[in-house]
Amino acid sequence: MGAADSADYGLLSPAWAGTPAAELTGDRQLLQALLDVELEWVRVLASAGLADPDAPAAVAAVSDASRYDAASLAERAQGGGNPVIPLLADLRAQAREVSPKAAAAIHRGATSQDIMDTALMLMARRALDTVLADADRAAAALGDLARRHAATLCVARTLTQHSLPSTFGLRAAQWLHGIGSAAQGLRTASDNLQLQWGGASGTLAALTLAAGSAPGGGTITAFDLTARLAHGLGLADPVAPWQTNRLPVTALGAALQDFTAAAGKVANDVLLLSRPEIGEVSEPRAAGRGGSSAMPQKQNPVLSVLIRSAALAAPGYGMQLNAAAAAADDERPSGSWHVEWQALRSLLRLAGGAAAKLAELAEGLQVSTDALARNLESAGPLVVSEKIMAVVAPLLDDGVPGRGKETVAATVARSLSSGEPFEELLRAAVPPEVLSDAELKSVLDPAEYLGEAAALIERITAAYPGKPPA
Amino acid sequence: MGAADSADYGLLSPAWAGTPAAELTGDRQLLQALLDVELEWVRVLASAGLADPDAPAAVAAVSDASRYDAASLAERAQGGGNPVIPLLADLRAQAREVSPKAAAAIHRGATSQDIMDTALMLMARRALDTVLADADRAAAALGDLARRHAATLCVARTLTQHSLPSTFGLRAAQWLHGIGSAAQGLRTASDNLQLQWGGASGTLAALTLAAGSAPGGGTITAFDLTARLAHGLGLADPVAPWQTNRLPVTALGAALQDFTAAAGKVANDVLLLSRPEIGEVSEPRAAGRGGSSAMPQKQNPVLSVLIRSAALAAPGYGMQLNAAAAAADDERPSGSWHVEWQALRSLLRLAGGAAAKLAELAEGLQVSTDALARNLESAGPLVVSEKIMAVVAPLLDDGVPGRGKETVAATVARSLSSGEPFEELLRAAVPPEVLSDAELKSVLDPAEYLGEAAALIERITAAYPGKPPA
Amino acid sequence: MGAADSADYGLLSPAWAGTPAAELTGDRQLLQALLDVELEWVRVLASAGLADPDAPAAVAAVSDASRYDAASLAERAQGGGNPVIPLLADLRAQAREVSPKAAAAIHRGATSQDIMDTALMLMARRALDTVLADADRAAAALGDLARRHAATLCVARTLTQHSLPSTFGLRAAQWLHGIGSAAQGLRTASDNLQLQWGGASGTLAALTLAAGSAPGGGTITAFDLTARLAHGLGLADPVAPWQTNRLPVTALGAALQDFTAAAGKVANDVLLLSRPEIGEVSEPRAAGRGGSSAMPQKQNPVLSVLIRSAALAAPGYGMQLNAAAAAADDERPSGSWHVEWQALRSLLRLAGGAAAKLAELAEGLQVSTDALARNLESAGPLVVSEKIMAVVAPLLDDGVPGRGKETVAATVARSLSSGEPFEELLRAAVPPEVLSDAELKSVLDPAEYLGEAAALIERITAAYPGKPPA
Amino acid sequence: MGAADSADYGLLSPAWAGTPAAELTGDRQLLQALLDVELEWVRVLASAGLADPDAPAAVAAVSDASRYDAASLAERAQGGGNPVIPLLADLRAQAREVSPKAAAAIHRGATSQDIMDTALMLMARRALDTVLADADRAAAALGDLARRHAATLCVARTLTQHSLPSTFGLRAAQWLHGIGSAAQGLRTASDNLQLQWGGASGTLAALTLAAGSAPGGGTITAFDLTARLAHGLGLADPVAPWQTNRLPVTALGAALQDFTAAAGKVANDVLLLSRPEIGEVSEPRAAGRGGSSAMPQKQNPVLSVLIRSAALAAPGYGMQLNAAAAAADDERPSGSWHVEWQALRSLLRLAGGAAAKLAELAEGLQVSTDALARNLESAGPLVVSEKIMAVVAPLLDDGVPGRGKETVAATVARSLSSGEPFEELLRAAVPPEVLSDAELKSVLDPAEYLGEAAALIERITAAYPGKPPA
Repeated sequence: MGAADSADYGLLSPAWAGTPAAELTGDRQLLQALLDVELEWVRVLASAGLADPDAPAAVAAVSDASRYDAASLAERAQGGGNPVIPLLADLRAQAREVSPKAAAAIHRGATSQDIMDTALMLMARRALDTVLADADRAAAALGDLARRHAATLCVARTLTQHSLPSTFGLRAAQWLHGIGSAAQGLRTASDNLQLQWGGASGTLAALTLAAGSAPGGGTITAFDLTARLAHGLGLADPVAPWQTNRLPVTALGAALQDFTAAAGKVANDVLLLSRPEIGEVSEPRAAGRGGSSAMPQKQNPVLSVLIRSAALAAPGYGMQLNAAAAAADDERPSGSWHVEWQALRSLLRLAGGAAAKLAELAEGLQVSTDALARNLESAGPLVVSEKIMAVVAPLLDDGVPGRGKETVAATVARSLSSGEPFEELLRAAVPPEVLSDAELKSVLDPAEYLGEAAALIERITAAYPGKPPA
Repeated sequence: MGAADSADYGLLSPAWAGTPAAELTGDRQLLQALLDVELEWVRVLASAGLADPDAPAAVAAVSDASRYDAASLAERAQGGGNPVIPLLADLRAQAREVSPKAAAAIHRGATSQDIMDTALMLMARRALDTVLADADRAAAALGDLARRHAATLCVARTLTQHSLPSTFGLRAAQWLHGIGSAAQGLRTASDNLQLQWGGASGTLAALTLAAGSAPGGGTITAFDLTARLAHGLGLADPVAPWQTNRLPVTALGAALQDFTAAAGKVANDVLLLSRPEIGEVSEPRAAGRGGSSAMPQKQNPVLSVLIRSAALAAPGYGMQLNAAAAAADDERPSGSWHVEWQALRSLLRLAGGAAAKLAELAEGLQVSTDALARNLESAGPLVVSEKIMAVVAPLLDDGVPGRGKETVAATVARSLSSGEPFEELLRAAVPPEVLSDAELKSVLDPAEYLGEAAALIERITAAYPGKPPA
Repeated sequence: MGAADSADYGLLSPAWAGTPAAELTGDRQLLQALLDVELEWVRVLASAGLADPDAPAAVAAVSDASRYDAASLAERAQGGGNPVIPLLADLRAQAREVSPKAAAAIHRGATSQDIMDTALMLMARRALDTVLADADRAAAALGDLARRHAATLCVARTLTQHSLPSTFGLRAAQWLHGIGSAAQGLRTASDNLQLQWGGASGTLAALTLAAGSAPGGGTITAFDLTARLAHGLGLADPVAPWQTNRLPVTALGAALQDFTAAAGKVANDVLLLSRPEIGEVSEPRAAGRGGSSAMPQKQNPVLSVLIRSAALAAPGYGMQLNAAAAAADDERPSGSWHVEWQALRSLLRLAGGAAAKLAELAEGLQVSTDALARNLESAGPLVVSEKIMAVVAPLLDDGVPGRGKETVAATVARSLSSGEPFEELLRAAVPPEVLSDAELKSVLDPAEYLGEAAALIERITAAYPGKPPA
Repeated sequence: MGAADSADYGLLSPAWAGTPAAELTGDRQLLQALLDVELEWVRVLASAGLADPDAPAAVAAVSDASRYDAASLAERAQGGGNPVIPLLADLRAQAREVSPKAAAAIHRGATSQDIMDTALMLMARRALDTVLADADRAAAALGDLARRHAATLCVARTLTQHSLPSTFGLRAAQWLHGIGSAAQGLRTASDNLQLQWGGASGTLAALTLAAGSAPGGGTITAFDLTARLAHGLGLADPVAPWQTNRLPVTALGAALQDFTAAAGKVANDVLLLSRPEIGEVSEPRAAGRGGSSAMPQKQNPVLSVLIRSAALAAPGYGMQLNAAAAAADDERPSGSWHVEWQALRSLLRLAGGAAAKLAELAEGLQVSTDALARNLESAGPLVVSEKIMAVVAPLLDDGVPGRGKETVAATVARSLSSGEPFEELLRAAVPPEVLSDAELKSVLDPAEYLGEAAALIERITAAYPGKPPA
């Protein structure tokens, strides 16, 4: 009974269950991050002569998360409102068995918010490593798709309707545009993750007191110690504690939401394009995926469904982070701080799940050039109506500006209502002497109305090579 | 490795960790609900002669959630996008060992969404029972506070400033007003939780087919069977499947958010009123609660902090449910349906955590009548300035309507700027013949300017007796 | 310069610009609602002998919103944080010109929150009348579609893929299911809109004082007066003031969101089904709608685009209402109350815009039975694979339960991979003696696998006749 | 009737009504931005020989927003789903009167989304200029407060309770920490606002066609033209059109939300600290602000109330932007794009209103050093309990590590329960020979337990000087 029976293994979250990011943000790894921060702090203290030289080894001996009971800690966390307080009690008790001196050094000059905030940033960094690896895989695969299909014609769609000719390569490049820039944002966010350390009320008072007693007569300051800690944990060292200014948290949340949104855009398109009537793409098949128990022929685009679900869910968590930042008060927020934790974890999980699935989707996406050609063909010559308006209409002005446009529009309308082939009607409306058959054919050729599609593919793939510049 | 290491025991959620609602909504109990629905359905089929008479017993023998591995199921749920598909495989395999015939009957005429939606409603009902029990405890305690302090004077505050005299009883009654009406809403929501059953595409086709083969020659319809299922599970029987109309889900979400909001209102007030400078209330003390490791004198209002965090978090989940409902498409939503599950669980947990903590808070709230009196006293006679304006000012009009108000306003301004006692200045401004000393004293007595405070307490406690009318 | 130049006429909101709901919730009508509440209150006071008998007429003479400058009031509202304070000044000044006595009676025993909350409810009621009228039109049209197409076959889609046969009538009925139940919710919300009246701090103190001075020696109570006011305004009379318990506001918000979500579901489907490759429906054409300046052939489903945009936007406003309710404090919330106003107006506008567009869409929706038939045909015989599994597979078990399913699955797989017609392969696999040609044809006929589609249309159209029972 | 009567002048939005940002984002200025983009584009075309040399002057002559009817345009925008389409018709009609050639050049190679997206970025840039100016004022004032009160002692509060001594200067510096970093984020966002230009489907097809016809024989490319446009409008030139990748919009939304959140933190604190019982700060008084019609003594902290309301509202709009980005599909999003417009405007208005009010608040904030001292005093010696634990407890260990802590804790408990002065009890518990009276006095002096408060003020004010480095 109790917290252990409350466990959430992801049964309701197929978007992230079973992915590395889920594991890296589970209670076990959160515990490990909390312990890692406490341990690194003992190392810093020892390096400054503020803890026994043997303390780091003693604390390290009891710093494996598997030694602690996450469910019990979760339950006891109610007492003080956060899990650091009961964890500290258990950690000290275990350390005491090894070395009472080491136990006494633990957490010196720290407050539970310092540990909590910093451990969450550490956990985020670890999870982001895997999110970014998958995002890079996805970006590389999208770049390949873009280049490979640079000359594969398709019909573009705006507001659901056929609009102009385009290429499947440009579509893939635009997917990369979103994923690549979102991944850059995540990388920046990861590089900027900050230590948070302010002591009980943001003045670093206990730490200043401790630093003053260090050997060397005051040559070591509290800021020196926190800088060492940041360095040891691989986090950035901030200007000041941010226990009440939660922009470092919202910045991370914004980057994560941007990534799930960019992935969601791809998934939305794949869901549309893999509809049977459209059939331009299909998801990679894999054993046990996409099947239906009752309908053996059915192959569902499950990767996209789950990516889309992640994209739809993320803004709710983002809103929690932004609302929490807006509700902060005093020298430690009374309630809003507590909202951030689960929201941040959930965003990391959704981004991680979306990235893993997107990488698989992008690497294995099946593109049907037949269907692309068929759908473009079905759009008919009207898909270049914009070009006809620009090129042909002026030839029909007969000295009256605008008359040509009216003529073309009337031709379009007649074709749409009567079903007569537009090409023939147009041929009849335009004297061959102003536009030869060859010229008309050229005007009506979708392949000759692609604008800068190829150049855009170049620009986008160059801008987002899939890996950061070394 | 994998889903088991991703487990969330509530380490980041002290607002609900360790509460009954958390357990009733954990993966274990979700599994149980899924199994309960499958089992009940076999019972219904057997009752109609559509499954072997022994099938229910055989399925019951393998329907304890402890027989299944939630973490593994969570991981495998990625394949089909929901956990029912792998669970069904495991359930059938286990049932087959007991009775192949029983195994064959399982899930007949159902689709995974039927099981999932219905099991979530079942899980919600079970969780709501405990939420409502705690809500009723809280309401009863608030009603007691309201009646007990019906005559305890205090100062009301609007936009943070002292406004008028009131009673602590009315404040508690208004807390009850929110909690009582939110609890009514939850009770209604609980009573309205519906079965969802439509088969693979909402036509009940497979079930209709099956019903047609039942003994009795078509006298049993698909609707008869779903009605029996609803009855067996204690859920309402809807007009039609709602696999794409998600208002039953948003209705539940709205009721849960209303409850956390009402609880949040109480918590916000307790956080304010228990500030040391105000001191009107304090949270009940309990061993291990509210302490600070570094500052032994400190007693944090942890119950209220955690209730407030639940209230702040809830709208993010509510938004997910509403956005999911708005994004539904086709005969089964492609992604938005999947968003609902975790959002609904999270809301149930937040409401459950808030209810449990609120019950404890309301039952043990310490009220300092000294502080209430002191703060009212500190507000001075100006706290009845509205009454002075209404009663005294007209006496000073001297035939010029409005002049009296100006006189009183000038007296107020002078008192505020010079520090001279307002009461003396007012006495000097009003001739004793129009207002005797006794009358003036009466005007200035906060206890004589409570309006309908007592009657409102009566009305509210009568409307929300804490238990539904039997 | 100033507020007048800030005017928002809806240029960024084509989802609601130009609709009746937009006008009924503009600043002009809000002003009117504020004035109507003040005027009705003077009437109530006069009816109780607490205001001059001529006061109502005098106030009525200056109670037309066109007499007041909304932009100036908006700017001056910053001073006190709400528009009632400057409006009251202007109203009293104008009333004074007519009758000083009447001017003095205005707002007696009220506070600005009373006026504001009550006027917003009044404005909501007026706007809901038009929203409901359009919702009823939409429901009636959807009911017609459902009945008219009760036998029009189509293919159902789950997770974007073809699943089972269904009817277009059932699809329309399910749209009605959503719209009808959301409209019922709106109607209930409209009927429950409540007066909010508590005086300066929720005690009704000033009003109690005033009532005590009424002719009749205390026989009239403050509650009598507020009941008369509620009746006069057509609002419900609550148990108590709800100046800090904002559930009446969130309840309205929830109902409005449910409506936009239900409308969004229809729009999502129309957007999908009107894609050129699917072509099952198209929006009603109207002059000047859906055209593209550059592409004369293009016809965009603008009604659905705008309805969908309303559905996507609504949860953001809903979240504001829920978060505001959760942040309430004291005897008047310090900031969260102010959030509700614009959020509530925006939801009313979005619902009104969505209802107007949905009514037009539903009344004019073009259904292509050709496309419906073509898409069902393209799904092939596998669209009844569920039925084949249920009916045919057992015939092939050869005494080994499950073997038949394997045979059918292998047949499906072979057909999918080789392209051989499934029907022929199935015929070859099933001996004619166990299933005749006629029986096989029947099994494969989509029209014979519609389950309860027709009955569901009956149930849904009966439940939501489009108008409330008289 | 119609859109004009729907006008919103800000009557429901005192948080931004009447501020420059509100005006700069009103329909009038939006119209102006749309016209400015069209005009600048004509200039670019003319510069490339693609429009008549006189066209810019002719278009400029009809490009003042006052020539157009925003309400009518808003109503007509329903037809195509955005206001550019009707505006273009009106603009061309007016331009035609001046010069038919100029009229023909307007909008060449553009699509309505190009104009809309780019105009919104332009409007945002203009509004951000004023937001940043006010943010800088606020930052400068907060920096002054921080430095001026660097030595003003106060009590810090965590989870609402007194925790440690601090300085009012550090509190102000932490406000600056939030505002300064949010302002940096806004400045970066403003500098990164991008042109969006892709033509009808993101291929720049029409523009490529036009560029090809420019004098010079293809030496001018579509990218040259869009680069000139970006430069002319003062916007950044992106890698590619972002008509479907909406991260430039969410980035702006995130920065705006961060600003309102940082402002909200200050407002939350001012609301708490200006409560009568605390009284540490009060808002600057101004004629007509903060008064109550009924209670003449009341002075409400209206600036903070309105800033807080802006901070609470912002996440709802942010969620709309993030959800819209996640819902994008095709080559132009069908509905989600339309959601962004009002959300973005609303965020600009809230940030602008919050900035203006915060500047006034910060510049005029009244600080009561008496109250700061009184509240610290009331916290008593226990406010340095952390220090006592660190410094005194070890002296009482008597060789048993931890015994000293128990002794101190017991002393604290006895003082809290019996009311005996803690200082005396502590004196009695600690032998004078281990801690002299002077040493004890020093330990108990809050001014000697400020940690790095002064250094943090230095660091923060250095990091956020209120203006960007020149």
